[in-house]
Amino acid sequence: MAQPKPLVARTTNGQWRTSLTLIEPNRILVRGYPLDELMGRVHFGEVTYLLLTGELPTPSIGRLVDAMLVSFIDHGATPPSTLAARNAATTGASIRGSVAAGILGFGRHHGGDILACRQMLDDGLALARTGQSIADAAVGLVQRMVEAGEITPPGFGHRYHTKDPRATRLLQMAHELEVDHEYTQLLRALEQALVTHSSPEGRSLPINVDGAIAAICGDIGLPPEVADALLVISRVPGLAAHALEEQGREAPMRAINPTAHMYDGPSERRLPARRK
Amino acid sequence: MAQPKPLVARTTNGQWRTSLTLIEPNRILVRGYPLDELMGRVHFGEVTYLLLTGELPTPSIGRLVDAMLVSFIDHGATPPSTLAARNAATTGASIRGSVAAGILGFGRHHGGDILACRQMLDDGLALARTGQSIADAAVGLVQRMVEAGEITPPGFGHRYHTKDPRATRLLQMAHELEVDHEYTQLLRALEQALVTHSSPEGRSLPINVDGAIAAICGDIGLPPEVADALLVISRVPGLAAHALEEQGREAPMRAINPTAHMYDGPSERRLPARRK
Amino acid sequence: MAQPKPLVARTTNGQWRTSLTLIEPNRILVRGYPLDELMGRVHFGEVTYLLLTGELPTPSIGRLVDAMLVSFIDHGATPPSTLAARNAATTGASIRGSVAAGILGFGRHHGGDILACRQMLDDGLALARTGQSIADAAVGLVQRMVEAGEITPPGFGHRYHTKDPRATRLLQMAHELEVDHEYTQLLRALEQALVTHSSPEGRSLPINVDGAIAAICGDIGLPPEVADALLVISRVPGLAAHALEEQGREAPMRAINPTAHMYDGPSERRLPARRK
Amino acid sequence: MAQPKPLVARTTNGQWRTSLTLIEPNRILVRGYPLDELMGRVHFGEVTYLLLTGELPTPSIGRLVDAMLVSFIDHGATPPSTLAARNAATTGASIRGSVAAGILGFGRHHGGDILACRQMLDDGLALARTGQSIADAAVGLVQRMVEAGEITPPGFGHRYHTKDPRATRLLQMAHELEVDHEYTQLLRALEQALVTHSSPEGRSLPINVDGAIAAICGDIGLPPEVADALLVISRVPGLAAHALEEQGREAPMRAINPTAHMYDGPSERRLPARRK
Repeated sequence: MAQPKPLVARTTNGQWRTSLTLIEPNRILVRGYPLDELMGRVHFGEVTYLLLTGELPTPSIGRLVDAMLVSFIDHGATPPSTLAARNAATTGASIRGSVAAGILGFGRHHGGDILACRQMLDDGLALARTGQSIADAAVGLVQRMVEAGEITPPGFGHRYHTKDPRATRLLQMAHELEVDHEYTQLLRALEQALVTHSSPEGRSLPINVDGAIAAICGDIGLPPEVADALLVISRVPGLAAHALEEQGREAPMRAINPTAHMYDGPSERRLPARRK
Repeated sequence: MAQPKPLVARTTNGQWRTSLTLIEPNRILVRGYPLDELMGRVHFGEVTYLLLTGELPTPSIGRLVDAMLVSFIDHGATPPSTLAARNAATTGASIRGSVAAGILGFGRHHGGDILACRQMLDDGLALARTGQSIADAAVGLVQRMVEAGEITPPGFGHRYHTKDPRATRLLQMAHELEVDHEYTQLLRALEQALVTHSSPEGRSLPINVDGAIAAICGDIGLPPEVADALLVISRVPGLAAHALEEQGREAPMRAINPTAHMYDGPSERRLPARRK
Repeated sequence: MAQPKPLVARTTNGQWRTSLTLIEPNRILVRGYPLDELMGRVHFGEVTYLLLTGELPTPSIGRLVDAMLVSFIDHGATPPSTLAARNAATTGASIRGSVAAGILGFGRHHGGDILACRQMLDDGLALARTGQSIADAAVGLVQRMVEAGEITPPGFGHRYHTKDPRATRLLQMAHELEVDHEYTQLLRALEQALVTHSSPEGRSLPINVDGAIAAICGDIGLPPEVADALLVISRVPGLAAHALEEQGREAPMRAINPTAHMYDGPSERRLPARRK
Repeated sequence: MAQPKPLVARTTNGQWRTSLTLIEPNRILVRGYPLDELMGRVHFGEVTYLLLTGELPTPSIGRLVDAMLVSFIDHGATPPSTLAARNAATTGASIRGSVAAGILGFGRHHGGDILACRQMLDDGLALARTGQSIADAAVGLVQRMVEAGEITPPGFGHRYHTKDPRATRLLQMAHELEVDHEYTQLLRALEQALVTHSSPEGRSLPINVDGAIAAICGDIGLPPEVADALLVISRVPGLAAHALEEQGREAPMRAINPTAHMYDGPSERRLPARRK
């Protein structure tokens, strides 16, 4: 194989710097790797990780990152982000503009739990590092929240799911791939501690997908802001698909009622054998 | 394996329909597949294809779609879309808002060639179906463009690259995977025909990445609007990475001069052996 | 009064140019006028006109431009643009992000009639300039549309209003201010001609606010793209007000059903005497 | 004049409520006022105030609100928000999309001073209400900031202007219109207190336009979030004008260097006599 061409040294005089991608005539390096060598050899989820962190993931982390991206790719027609995209699309706006409107429909109450849960876990682990066990730190955190009147910690509970299948699967994968460390342990300890303090009506507060992503990103060493960026990246295909469906299937300028729709896609089906 | 649970029939009275994703308590089906089964088994690029088209790709098409997404993931700090994202990020705007601003920085002159090139190829194939050979159709298209004064057909030529490494790689992959059919043949025939009509100064007009994507999407049966959606999906990681780098590395509210920057990331490096 | 300070001549070597606003230390000129002199003396709608066209409007045109901006400032909670802004706001997104999402909710079917109507009027006036009367040109245009199967010309008809009070008022103002010329005449002639060709069910197709704006902008010499820009400018206060109301009044993450809302603001009231 | 039609009572069963605008066939009420009566009688800036606050402004407050909107309408080609809009526009994106990108280019470091300054003023006035004079509260605030290492309080200082002409004019208008109360007094007292604590290099920290707007909005009783909304509303004409100029005057896909441009608009000129 030919030797890599050394990068010509450049002055920094008056020049700002980027470490993401080198563009030269007929040559594109993403974090040092030729883009055309990445193509077909490294999956999009892994190149996303490379771009955001500077290095290719290990195979285990690459699989987890890809699974996290898939876990958040769509959640049906009711999220406000999806409705923002559909309301743009129904006016005949471009797919790009509709996707941008959808991204703007992620505020602190929607997709914001990943950052808040990570903060809570960092607080808990700081407690644990003072000598407490993780289980005790979890009980301490829950007591603090109960006293503060917070009844739904970030990363727990869901409007639709009493047991979020995405969280279950992510935590199972993290366990099998042996990347579940203290963040995941604390998350599970919190789930236990919440049972004890459950509300009188016995409301279940299981780990949701945001909580699982927050903890796993902690355990694989992703900074919170990168975890947050993964979330918006992951939902873009869903937003684009809803915008395309809106324009392909519905009359323009319709009133989109989020509570009056039905699914008419394929019935439940299994993956082909080669995928398992 | 347990039998898939049949979907309960629902009335369409007053209800609009979506075929993308079913949400029921503890159950999420994307185009019929349980999302938690997809996670860890089907890559993000393939689930994107599933969401946009309704079916999982064949392994060959899945690899090509993933490679197309990777090919467009970033192109350094100079594209206007990236500069829109960086100008938002330098003000302390959220990463999400910066990404949305970046997406709005794709107009018909930037990322628009995929649709325009597809249209040109569809026109050429319509000619070919009247009995002409693909080579003759290509010559006819080029003559028509020369007469109309269009000197840069969509999908050809690049500001930086005289031979776009992404296009080369995509077309090579399409060939190896045996999915290069009439769209790709016409694209190559056009490249030949353009040599004959090249401008006096001998300007080279090689196939660029937009042209390769447009032709391959044609050959694998993706509608133009889905090809266009793939493009915006593919660049989101790059926009997010630039916004994160801007906020992590630079002072706020700086004047971002796109012509005065340098790359200071890793020198060219090879993929680890297991990736080849 | 002190003499205006002459602008220092500058080289154009390598410098791009803007004719909108000069910024120097302690000095801001908008199209040549000191911004602090404009403040309190020239209304926002007129400075908008100044910025977009290069000159201050005459008093008559200034009043009309202001009235056009007011006419489009809000249209309740059902337009998709407003719903895009509200769906962003309900997630806790910023007011700015919500407003941006709202702006993205103006596609060619929503707010696009101004450009399409202007094009139609330009076509009609081109006919009239070949020797036809404006009335004959209107009949010709309508016949052409009927033959092409277009039953709702841009600028006519409304989902809610059989007689759009904004259009009535704008056209009345244009008449009183004596700025109604050939564009407005053609618009009125088209309304007449449409009666003759009305559909069997006798559907009424009165001039709507988009039609009135398109014609008046034509008569006062505003290029189509400036008329289009006025529209998006005019609706921003409405989008902001809806986003603020959403966050001030409703629980986060609610499902926003556009068909199930009611107005509970003040009953109809009259302007104070000094305003008349 | 005909009696206002009483609003039909409506159930709130399952209906959400808006108090902004009533839409009925042929009838549009903005906060109770018929929109067509507002047109031509009440200026756009005042209707904006009506929409955001629920009531028409007094003449004095109406003039100030209009002047604040004018003060922020444009600030040349260098703000990142303007560059985001121009970078979108150079790709051939729509004016609407370019404006949206521009709005996303207002982060906490750009346009965020109004909220931060208002918070500081509220803190200072809380001090003053404990018995201190406003002058003492100002000295206390500055000492607290000096101890916290904050050297540029929000609302003071400017990258270009050592004396912001917009702030001067706004404060003068507020004084003449007799709406300058405790917020404005505290702002002026802070400016005095800052002189005493000025940095060794004698850096001047005069009131800037954000500070003036923050204080005046406080004195006229506008909630902070409404003051913040006014800011984004006010800049939209500037963003649209830059996007239009970019597309009308420059080649597509150019590299926009914010440090290499010049103004070539009209030389300084005076308002026509009737405007004074």
